[in-house]
Amino acid sequence: MPDTIATRRFITSAEKIDVLSPWTLDEWICRSDIVANEQLLMVRANMNPGGSHPFHRHPTREELIYVISGQAEQWVGRKKQLLGPGDTAFIPQDEVHGTWNPFDTPLVFLAILSPAGAAEPSIVDMAADEPWCSLRQP
Amino acid sequence: MPDTIATRRFITSAEKIDVLSPWTLDEWICRSDIVANEQLLMVRANMNPGGSHPFHRHPTREELIYVISGQAEQWVGRKKQLLGPGDTAFIPQDEVHGTWNPFDTPLVFLAILSPAGAAEPSIVDMAADEPWCSLRQP
Repeated sequence: MPDTIATRRFITSAEKIDVLSPWTLDEWICRSDIVANEQLLMVRANMNPGGSHPFHRHPTREELIYVISGQAEQWVGRKKQLLGPGDTAFIPQDEVHGTWNPFDTPLVFLAILSPAGAAEPSIVDMAADEPWCSLRQP
Repeated sequence: MPDTIATRRFITSAEKIDVLSPWTLDEWICRSDIVANEQLLMVRANMNPGGSHPFHRHPTREELIYVISGQAEQWVGRKKQLLGPGDTAFIPQDEVHGTWNPFDTPLVFLAILSPAGAAEPSIVDMAADEPWCSLRQP
């Protein structure tokens, strides 16, 4: 009997759901249209060289960003750090953050958010607001 | 000024905390002695060939297992699947599960649990209980 959302326990290339966002090609791994999640959301994001996900915040969720391959110029608040494979950014609920790939190779990272069933809005764009719009020198 | 737990936003090889568990070498990335987490726990687990984390459950937390490298014989309930790099297991709160590495190469995976501040016990060993003790043929 094929798996349903209620019975699915494994997510491979056959089960993930691909979504092209304005910033990244998102491979959704843990979302309510894939599994019966209550706490966790997870997406594997693919960011091309020159790509970015400019400053934004998640008012209702905590987040981890874990680099799988490539390198990320990661900002959390006013702090910037270069992250490579195996490195992580911790983003408290509602803290402004952004990811850039100014490098020559694709960046692949996991974004993990919790709780899953949080109130909207799930994301607020901060890219046009001070100090974020003048913080990063291209 | 050096980071404190309250101000830390990046976790690299310099910030992670290594713990040798009975099953794996655990590299803790997101835990309350590293960052001011409220929702998420994350550990990178290293399992040698022949190693395992036999059947157990987390009564108060949902979990994702994401394979970084190597291969896992992953069980969730009575379902078994071979997982490779990029594959994921979804484990509902309190569901019995276990991981084996019967292969020739080390297995590295992320274990992500939520919520962080859940009630004890965080883990209950089920390896000696039926049907789990007779489910897997070595």
